[in-house]
Amino acid sequence: MKPMRRLLFEIAYRGTAYHGYQVQQNARTVAEVMQDAIEVVFKKREGITGCSRTDTGVHANQFYFHMDTQAGIPCEAAVIALNNSLPGDIAVKSCREVGPEFHARYSVKKKEYLYKIWDAPIRNPLLDGLVLHNRRRLDEALLNRCAQEFLGTHDFIGFCSAGGKMHDTVRTIYDCGVVRDGDLVEFRVTGNGFLYNMVRIMVGTLLQADYGRLKEGDITEIVASKDRSRGGITAGPEGLYLNRVLY
Amino acid sequence: MKPMRRLLFEIAYRGTAYHGYQVQQNARTVAEVMQDAIEVVFKKREGITGCSRTDTGVHANQFYFHMDTQAGIPCEAAVIALNNSLPGDIAVKSCREVGPEFHARYSVKKKEYLYKIWDAPIRNPLLDGLVLHNRRRLDEALLNRCAQEFLGTHDFIGFCSAGGKMHDTVRTIYDCGVVRDGDLVEFRVTGNGFLYNMVRIMVGTLLQADYGRLKEGDITEIVASKDRSRGGITAGPEGLYLNRVLY
Repeated sequence: MKPMRRLLFEIAYRGTAYHGYQVQQNARTVAEVMQDAIEVVFKKREGITGCSRTDTGVHANQFYFHMDTQAGIPCEAAVIALNNSLPGDIAVKSCREVGPEFHARYSVKKKEYLYKIWDAPIRNPLLDGLVLHNRRRLDEALLNRCAQEFLGTHDFIGFCSAGGKMHDTVRTIYDCGVVRDGDLVEFRVTGNGFLYNMVRIMVGTLLQADYGRLKEGDITEIVASKDRSRGGITAGPEGLYLNRVLY
Repeated sequence: MKPMRRLLFEIAYRGTAYHGYQVQQNARTVAEVMQDAIEVVFKKREGITGCSRTDTGVHANQFYFHMDTQAGIPCEAAVIALNNSLPGDIAVKSCREVGPEFHARYSVKKKEYLYKIWDAPIRNPLLDGLVLHNRRRLDEALLNRCAQEFLGTHDFIGFCSAGGKMHDTVRTIYDCGVVRDGDLVEFRVTGNGFLYNMVRIMVGTLLQADYGRLKEGDITEIVASKDRSRGGITAGPEGLYLNRVLY
């Protein structure tokens, strides 16, 4: 019998055309399209385990999944063959063999998300689906100062949408900031884990600054309140990117 | 009777979802979607005259059309109302009133095109539809030197696809170059006009360098030959952007 190998694949995708990463009934998802390609290349429909969930319309600059297989196909050949089989909005960036103790999801140490905002009166049609459009000029220096208040270990239950199934809602944020590059404003956050919709609620809360409704100290208070109704709306999925996954 | 006004609109669009700019039967085009929005805002389906044609899948960072109307709606209000009516992959950037002698197409002095190439072994799924993917590393310095040979006034009939209806195939290229920004290689060209598929054939010809089949002097010879079969293939539409239109 051929030995079982655990392969770790690094992928990236534009999420616009997908109902998120994870397989669902009657919906086109990244995992399902990936399994279709795997079936072509590996001649068998293998199960895959992703590093994270992503929602409908959310993108990934880096995402990992692992797969156990007895097929002997070399990693480099698998990358090329899968890319030939996949649509243009998904790419396999790398593949390597890992030990059986390695788990795409449970071995994750840190994740980094980006949230991109097109900050100008007129939308950018070339970035349709790739950014949130905000019409009124944001004060990125104020947003950056406020974002620092997310740093550290907190119970983020007030930054979690209903539907999340987490029991432990304490998470640690290592790094957080807002920068501007022309009309593009980027929120970047790194943590040991994120609750359901947590980054989008962080962004929606920071964007209250747009209405003059956010001042320094507010984020600290909203986090401490553990009350979802104190924060802003859940910002749209189109600006969100899983940017880096660290093992 | 209300006076007739000629309005000049500046727009931008992602062309992926459209069968080009100009209205066609049984195909969704930018002009048709624009006329739908105009009908909503101006309460009348007005005819519009574009500055150029663009093919299926080609983008525009800047594009103009003019429209004659008796409606009194101010330019700024028209911009806002049209953007509210249009899909996210088209935007109206500005509107101004021009004299009856001004013509969106015939008054054009220069046009600038960009052609974007993702130059890396693995495609970028976030730029799907927005760049041409080239797998082997291009020598942008060589491409840039070769591109200079397009400069000046030449009969570009050898850089024109069948289907073009031009009688005069002489065009002047004012500026032309290739630059790299990381894995993105950009070809930029400005001229007083362009034949059908001319920019895409220029790019396809430069890309023969990818196969070691282009050296300095070749472009000069290919242009002088006036023979379409001497140049490269017509590069795909996804990397092409009408970038600036100068009146």
